[in-house]
Amino acid sequence: MTNSAPVNAQRANPADGVHDRLKRARVASRALATANGDVKNRALEALAVQVVDATARILAANATDLENGERAGLAAGLLDRLRLDESRVSALASAVREIAALTDPVGQTLRGSRLPNGVKIDQVRVPFGVVGAIYEARPNVTIDIAALALKSGNAVVLRGGTAAENTNRELVRVIRDALTSAGLPEDAVQTVDDFGREGATQLMQARGLVDVLVPRGSASLIQAVVTESRVPVIETGAGVVHIYLDESARLDWATEIVHNAKVQRPSVCNAVETVLVHRDAAERLLPSVLDRLAASGVTIHADEAVAALFPGTVPAVDEDWATEHMSLDISVRVVDDLDEALDHIRRYSTGHTESILTEDVAAAERFLAEVDSAVVMVNASTRFTDGGEFGFGAEVGISTQKLHARGPMGVTELTSTKWTVRGTGQVRA
Amino acid sequence: MTNSAPVNAQRANPADGVHDRLKRARVASRALATANGDVKNRALEALAVQVVDATARILAANATDLENGERAGLAAGLLDRLRLDESRVSALASAVREIAALTDPVGQTLRGSRLPNGVKIDQVRVPFGVVGAIYEARPNVTIDIAALALKSGNAVVLRGGTAAENTNRELVRVIRDALTSAGLPEDAVQTVDDFGREGATQLMQARGLVDVLVPRGSASLIQAVVTESRVPVIETGAGVVHIYLDESARLDWATEIVHNAKVQRPSVCNAVETVLVHRDAAERLLPSVLDRLAASGVTIHADEAVAALFPGTVPAVDEDWATEHMSLDISVRVVDDLDEALDHIRRYSTGHTESILTEDVAAAERFLAEVDSAVVMVNASTRFTDGGEFGFGAEVGISTQKLHARGPMGVTELTSTKWTVRGTGQVRA
Repeated sequence: MTNSAPVNAQRANPADGVHDRLKRARVASRALATANGDVKNRALEALAVQVVDATARILAANATDLENGERAGLAAGLLDRLRLDESRVSALASAVREIAALTDPVGQTLRGSRLPNGVKIDQVRVPFGVVGAIYEARPNVTIDIAALALKSGNAVVLRGGTAAENTNRELVRVIRDALTSAGLPEDAVQTVDDFGREGATQLMQARGLVDVLVPRGSASLIQAVVTESRVPVIETGAGVVHIYLDESARLDWATEIVHNAKVQRPSVCNAVETVLVHRDAAERLLPSVLDRLAASGVTIHADEAVAALFPGTVPAVDEDWATEHMSLDISVRVVDDLDEALDHIRRYSTGHTESILTEDVAAAERFLAEVDSAVVMVNASTRFTDGGEFGFGAEVGISTQKLHARGPMGVTELTSTKWTVRGTGQVRA
Repeated sequence: MTNSAPVNAQRANPADGVHDRLKRARVASRALATANGDVKNRALEALAVQVVDATARILAANATDLENGERAGLAAGLLDRLRLDESRVSALASAVREIAALTDPVGQTLRGSRLPNGVKIDQVRVPFGVVGAIYEARPNVTIDIAALALKSGNAVVLRGGTAAENTNRELVRVIRDALTSAGLPEDAVQTVDDFGREGATQLMQARGLVDVLVPRGSASLIQAVVTESRVPVIETGAGVVHIYLDESARLDWATEIVHNAKVQRPSVCNAVETVLVHRDAAERLLPSVLDRLAASGVTIHADEAVAALFPGTVPAVDEDWATEHMSLDISVRVVDDLDEALDHIRRYSTGHTESILTEDVAAAERFLAEVDSAVVMVNASTRFTDGGEFGFGAEVGISTQKLHARGPMGVTELTSTKWTVRGTGQVRA
């Protein structure tokens, strides 16, 4: 069982619990919050160097996780996400350097004014303090979230999937060494992986010790965290994404955008899952749109009206409309008009991304105004909902909630604000 | 029992439950979200007129609540908050007109850019959708929250204190009539008062139907909502507020600021509760500072060092440091230096407001950087933490959490954002 010894045990009391680690993270967060950008970047650069230096150690730990995973019968897709190799480790280093290159959000002034009595007020960006992350067995998330938290001046407590426990332990060790080498407290990055599910549970109960929790992974993981957590959560992810082909949609745009939105990377949250098409345009658009999809191996789950226009579909069942396929499957339905499309979207959308393809300005503006999603598009592929595409650099995730952050989140979204007030003896009249 | 008939029963199915009302609020929220500022202001102006027109009816209902409250033995302070009279009703109308005069936050563009491929992205303010409010028996909050929600394009579901049930029913009737007269759906304002505690419970469970919950009232009410709610909460309020008199604090400023922060309005959350004073300045500052407080009838809960310098104090006990007195009581302690003051604040602050009085720039900057509160001040009265003083107009409350909003909240803080994306056929490479 040497593999499951807690990483922190090397430097701290091995008998400590989740609570003690959270308290140490809280103390360390104070140094992070007031660290200059240069110091934080020095730690990130050290991390980029040291993660590559530690490749052999990391890959050995990863091999253990992969063996355990194969023995436990993990699906091939999960094993692939878990697997590291030399080029993937070097990609981790590049990701860290990209994060280091971002603008430091801490200390930015958002608003400010001088009150009539001479008091000066300013709203400035500050770190949250301690960020918690609960995610599945993807070692790259360990590095990503830690680097994003560090860049934004936060301490972070990580709970990764058990299947990546050995890999994560080595990665956290490298991160903590990098913090030390830059003169920052290693306790700013903690893992609670060695506590198993209990680690996640305690993280979700740690109101007051953890300022915000970011779940990353499957819809069911996110749902579990949202339901159980007493700590404020930023909900990321699940996307039952729609494209509506309006009566006036251009055939070439419809064909290429739907194909791109489904086929370019079907396993991600901004891939389209359902296409709705205006009844009066179905015959004009669907043969070309569906032909292009079918040629790429997409299975078309069609309602009756669609099936009548295009051969080789499978019948759509009710649950298709609520399904995030994340695969080469797409649900296609004919609607009477924009109203029916909006109704359908209101009912089934997860509030991630929806796009209308149209040449009618009034329809476009109505769609933009009435669809209540994080990102609403006209004549563009839903795959553009992405922090990188939006120019934010590295992405924390895509928020589908309305509080604090909505849509692609960068380091800025890992900050809060405080008001500073500077007076010269003023009292309230 | 005619007094406890549900207000909505006059127009809707009297057998409906909380869930049905929330669903009706959700449907109505769509009309609110896309309503122009002119229309919303017309509804607010109608409300200002009609609330005064309905004075007799409102005061009759209020008299019933006051009778019930007296019979139930409500404290004098609570009865006073519950009591309306002609001038208080007219103040409600003025408050509504002030809210109408605010800038409409909906539709403001926060950020925007054109991506290299020509796609235009914009982050725009949108209403949350449905806001829930849980508060104690203060009729003015009913009008205030409804008007703030309406101005920011939100539907609102209200759960006021049972002690104000009759008054609130009349007020909600007036609000709904005002919405109708402006052509907006009356269902945009709902009350669940007639369901008693069950109304509050269901409101807190209504994830997906209610977008954000704003509790207003005592620390225990807020704590209960924060703990129980499955809906995202904006935590407002409780303030164990500190003023630290540094070694170099000016005597005149210290005397006037501490007095103002405690005495001007002791019952509010931005009133000071604890004064910390640097050991080397205690003898110079305390006699004048405490004399001025004592002359206004303030009871001084003093540690031993303070008691040795000033007669007539009562001994501070441990729980004083964690107490929001909200009365003419103040806790006073001598600390060795700024570090000890920061330690004390870290331990006992509720993250609302803290102020340092000093002439030392380094001490001031350290205090501003290291105190982790919504508002951190130098040489000013803590009473300035207020939406009105900050120039926001009417105030939703003062957020002491770090997510979404921190510090005084105006109508802007009752909005979320969405990204609009306008393309001309672009797909992701």
